[in-house]
Amino acid sequence: MFIRFITTGGTIDKIYFDALSQFEVGDSLVKHILTDGLVEFDYDIVPILQKDSLEMTDEDREQLYELISNDDTTRFVITHGTDTMPQTADKLAGLSGKTIVLTGALTPARFRTTDAVFNVGMAVAAVQACEPGVYIAMNGQVFPAGEVRKNRKENRFEKL
Amino acid sequence: MFIRFITTGGTIDKIYFDALSQFEVGDSLVKHILTDGLVEFDYDIVPILQKDSLEMTDEDREQLYELISNDDTTRFVITHGTDTMPQTADKLAGLSGKTIVLTGALTPARFRTTDAVFNVGMAVAAVQACEPGVYIAMNGQVFPAGEVRKNRKENRFEKL
Amino acid sequence: MFIRFITTGGTIDKIYFDALSQFEVGDSLVKHILTDGLVEFDYDIVPILQKDSLEMTDEDREQLYELISNDDTTRFVITHGTDTMPQTADKLAGLSGKTIVLTGALTPARFRTTDAVFNVGMAVAAVQACEPGVYIAMNGQVFPAGEVRKNRKENRFEKL
Amino acid sequence: MFIRFITTGGTIDKIYFDALSQFEVGDSLVKHILTDGLVEFDYDIVPILQKDSLEMTDEDREQLYELISNDDTTRFVITHGTDTMPQTADKLAGLSGKTIVLTGALTPARFRTTDAVFNVGMAVAAVQACEPGVYIAMNGQVFPAGEVRKNRKENRFEKL
Repeated sequence: MFIRFITTGGTIDKIYFDALSQFEVGDSLVKHILTDGLVEFDYDIVPILQKDSLEMTDEDREQLYELISNDDTTRFVITHGTDTMPQTADKLAGLSGKTIVLTGALTPARFRTTDAVFNVGMAVAAVQACEPGVYIAMNGQVFPAGEVRKNRKENRFEKL
Repeated sequence: MFIRFITTGGTIDKIYFDALSQFEVGDSLVKHILTDGLVEFDYDIVPILQKDSLEMTDEDREQLYELISNDDTTRFVITHGTDTMPQTADKLAGLSGKTIVLTGALTPARFRTTDAVFNVGMAVAAVQACEPGVYIAMNGQVFPAGEVRKNRKENRFEKL
Repeated sequence: MFIRFITTGGTIDKIYFDALSQFEVGDSLVKHILTDGLVEFDYDIVPILQKDSLEMTDEDREQLYELISNDDTTRFVITHGTDTMPQTADKLAGLSGKTIVLTGALTPARFRTTDAVFNVGMAVAAVQACEPGVYIAMNGQVFPAGEVRKNRKENRFEKL
Repeated sequence: MFIRFITTGGTIDKIYFDALSQFEVGDSLVKHILTDGLVEFDYDIVPILQKDSLEMTDEDREQLYELISNDDTTRFVITHGTDTMPQTADKLAGLSGKTIVLTGALTPARFRTTDAVFNVGMAVAAVQACEPGVYIAMNGQVFPAGEVRKNRKENRFEKL
């Protein structure tokens, strides 16, 4: 089994810079999460963006669509900011013959308490267990694209 | 969606007692892992054993089988010691109409670096994405019961 | 032995709010750090501010000075933002008969990798081992007030 | 400032081997603790033993005594198992002109919740703030050698 991970930024990879008292997207922690998870399958990690998902543009989504469309790989896990994750899932929903799972985190992976490790674990299982299609793995659930939204007030994903 | 978690002990829940310089099975950390994972589905946790899996008996497995057999719930995640996890999966393989995922850890959940959180995340996704049947989620993979063994020398699970 | 901890905010207590994609001062983690540190002395924790130290005013420092001045306690550990920690230490340097140690963190205590626990450990030892006076415990060193500055470019404390 | 760290084993460095379901002394985590603590002083780390302190012999203590005695360095932090830490401190108490602080942990440094980081932070502050002599830094306190014992039943250090 081979899984291609694509990282695009978002809260999961946020880092705190004291010098500036700012909080920005840093290098992806997906590699560390997979290493700690003792995974034994083949994979690679393709970093394409380091953005807060509110700053993702239609061009960014188009680029992601093309990248996956032109790739023979059939299993993709995409780490993504939470605010526009459903929007990107919708964009990718047209792709056929591939299982694509988007995930991310509501608390940065660099925090002592974070949902990042759990979520990447979910995505890894979903991408091998689900039928081809596009899914979002967040808050302990695997949602099909088009059937999920982020409730920002409650800061969680829920069924449409 | 409702998931019933059954805890039986194993490395995932091991704790270190300095007073005795020993390492024993402690209270399950599944509740903490689900809380940190920000899960939003309904669940409960049923602790039935606190054993190293090498000490599990045929009676223990029979008890587990009966408990699930007599339960209307259709999704079960079982945390289990790694050494005899495939054996317990085989025992449960006769049950129909239920999705059952066994998982555990090669490093205790109380460690700073552990595969426990990742594995429980995998199990939670697999129990909702997989067809009814019995599975083992370890080392980044979801194995059907009967097709997996623990390679003790390499300390990992692999396809038969 | 009794130690009074005073928390004023700063990076040590910063928390990330995904809803706003912001990073603000949250509840102090000093209590958790002392609990994990298995401390056996008597203490209390007095939260007086939750500020980035760049926002601390002369009035805030005067308030802190008065609070300690009017308090019979002789050992104080103050958690404080790093940017103006030396300035607050200078302000308190006039107080006599008390050992006062300021500390904080360059990375939030809520991070998986942080200097917060190490620094509070240093402060706790310094406040019982040092002569009365005012000190800063950061970057593995115990500096007397007036002999230390934060090098912002290098993001570390160093001897004047 | 230069500090020499000597590691001898003990709970602080214990590691869990699932293959054997055993718990043994592993490589020292002192280097990681100092790195996370963002220390800026000069130091080195000298590993001399990897033992549970109940297995330390008179010869081991003599070796440690000779090593420090023949060393020009004046500041030593020794990580040590907790059960016989006071005994080793007594042995070293005859050395003059050096500040020596022993510390360790009641819970392994590899655990998510551990006193190890806090304790090493205390030791680092004590070794620069204390008069020459031998000390034990545990449970939030800096005890002079000869005035402290481990209460095994309560699993903590206390004043004699």
